[in-house]
Amino acid sequence: MRPAEMIELWRGDLRESLHRGHAVICDAHGVVEAWGNPGQVIYPRSSCKMIQALPLIESGAADAAGLTARQLALACASHSGGAAHVDGVDRWLAGLGLADDDLRCGCHMPRDRVENRRLTCADLAPRQAHNNCSGKHAGFLTLNRHLGGGPDYERPDHPVQQAVRRAFEEVTAEDSPGFGIDGCSAPNWACTVEGLARAMARFANPGPDARGRAMRRLVDAMRAHPDMVAGEGRSCTRLMGAMDGRVAVKTGAEAVFVAILPEQGLGVALKIEDGSTRASEAAITAILTHLGVLDAAEPAARDLLGGPIANWRGIATGALRPAAGFPG
Amino acid sequence: MRPAEMIELWRGDLRESLHRGHAVICDAHGVVEAWGNPGQVIYPRSSCKMIQALPLIESGAADAAGLTARQLALACASHSGGAAHVDGVDRWLAGLGLADDDLRCGCHMPRDRVENRRLTCADLAPRQAHNNCSGKHAGFLTLNRHLGGGPDYERPDHPVQQAVRRAFEEVTAEDSPGFGIDGCSAPNWACTVEGLARAMARFANPGPDARGRAMRRLVDAMRAHPDMVAGEGRSCTRLMGAMDGRVAVKTGAEAVFVAILPEQGLGVALKIEDGSTRASEAAITAILTHLGVLDAAEPAARDLLGGPIANWRGIATGALRPAAGFPG
Repeated sequence: MRPAEMIELWRGDLRESLHRGHAVICDAHGVVEAWGNPGQVIYPRSSCKMIQALPLIESGAADAAGLTARQLALACASHSGGAAHVDGVDRWLAGLGLADDDLRCGCHMPRDRVENRRLTCADLAPRQAHNNCSGKHAGFLTLNRHLGGGPDYERPDHPVQQAVRRAFEEVTAEDSPGFGIDGCSAPNWACTVEGLARAMARFANPGPDARGRAMRRLVDAMRAHPDMVAGEGRSCTRLMGAMDGRVAVKTGAEAVFVAILPEQGLGVALKIEDGSTRASEAAITAILTHLGVLDAAEPAARDLLGGPIANWRGIATGALRPAAGFPG
Repeated sequence: MRPAEMIELWRGDLRESLHRGHAVICDAHGVVEAWGNPGQVIYPRSSCKMIQALPLIESGAADAAGLTARQLALACASHSGGAAHVDGVDRWLAGLGLADDDLRCGCHMPRDRVENRRLTCADLAPRQAHNNCSGKHAGFLTLNRHLGGGPDYERPDHPVQQAVRRAFEEVTAEDSPGFGIDGCSAPNWACTVEGLARAMARFANPGPDARGRAMRRLVDAMRAHPDMVAGEGRSCTRLMGAMDGRVAVKTGAEAVFVAILPEQGLGVALKIEDGSTRASEAAITAILTHLGVLDAAEPAARDLLGGPIANWRGIATGALRPAAGFPG
């Protein structure tokens, strides 16, 4: 099946650009609605961080380390590297008797405006704690402490990543065809868009067993701490805020987006074929509006879809719109 | 006709993302080779700045103001807002007895790392001269001085923009279906991808008349001053350098790219459907390699297409590749 036309950029009277993609909505029993090809194989990238955090809780490692909900939100985060995120990771590592050097995520300049300016103007290099994935890696290190594995916890054959793989294949109900190396050096296991939506529906319908309790705890942590999951002005933080914490959402690189709707028992996953984040943000906004959990008039929703795009002098030049046949 | 698959992003053993688009190569007589839909209507955005500069020369305004080749390159630029670009525009405006406030392009922070850091750390706001289009606007002001028009030279019905429109329709050999307002507030007239390639072929095969002389002068200015057309590390500057100034290239927002090959008498235009610059840069690299004017082993070419993409720890995670049926 071909990708569906999803998001259009209009300028004047012309459709200037077009984004195609795949999206699936699942409930506890299976696919409820889909656009494009539900069987498209993708890397979920950072959108699956709540899956990657399951072994952290299920193993008992999170409780042994006394992790808080705020820390669990950081474990699921692609954070902006602001002071609160970096301090959170620093303290977490210190509690384990570890330090920045024990991380294997690499360094990049933070998105957070204040922290970026501080580093830039003081000629300071970013540390690994600034990496948007440092919370996930602090979680890996916590699990690794519990499992007693070697320091190279990011290797695909390491017990930490094999535990992640087992959890990933169980909740997607698929055998992963393989992995790619992510920006943060951890393996990222592939699945179908439908498999990812199925996994999100399981998070939305957690059972009474250990897995269900772990899922509930992670979703509650994300919804309680949307500022930890991304940062000021970021789509995940703003969308969760606009929905009063009723829905958990998470972005992934190359235009993946997922949503977990506990009240509706629904899970959503989408991938824009071309990897454009502006389009994945617009598409998840369209679907959340379609499902009745996001008000299209909310500033966060309007900024991501439909609201006018202003140029450098504040003149409205165009807008992102849903394509015909796509909701919103 | 549907867009063609052009550029793929691979990670591990999976095609993670895909960019589709339209591309046309023309010689003096018409279409030589094409992918996707040559009739696709697009906004050329900044890729047509050498067309927008034609009336500046043909009117006699450039000579009346004593413009140099370096200034003509700035008129065709989407520059990085580095010190050399900003100084160039400041001096140009001063020579006209005008100042930053006379520009109508708006302000944005410069891409140039040094100038961006200087403004950020001194808490200074960017001026309009920092806008990547400020050279084009200095050209508009120069033409306006010659035509004696009002100060609102960016209005679509202003004599400056109407002169641009006439030149645009003549060199594309199309009646434009309309305009959109660009990021810099000037109107951007629409044409087909084939029309834009046809215009570039005319620049590559300039006649002995006033228009031909103006085209030759602009192309020579771009090729002699690739650092003025964009900036350090930017694709236009790097690609023109890698081809020893034999070919002029120019990017445009929303993934348009054009090339003018005087030695071959060819013009190229392409548009990636989804508006991703990484893909338009990769696609023009593929076509220039295909035409034998760019060595695929050049660092600039490898960085834009085919070379490994490294993550935050320097590990190769994937690569951009031409899709089957697209050259490169």
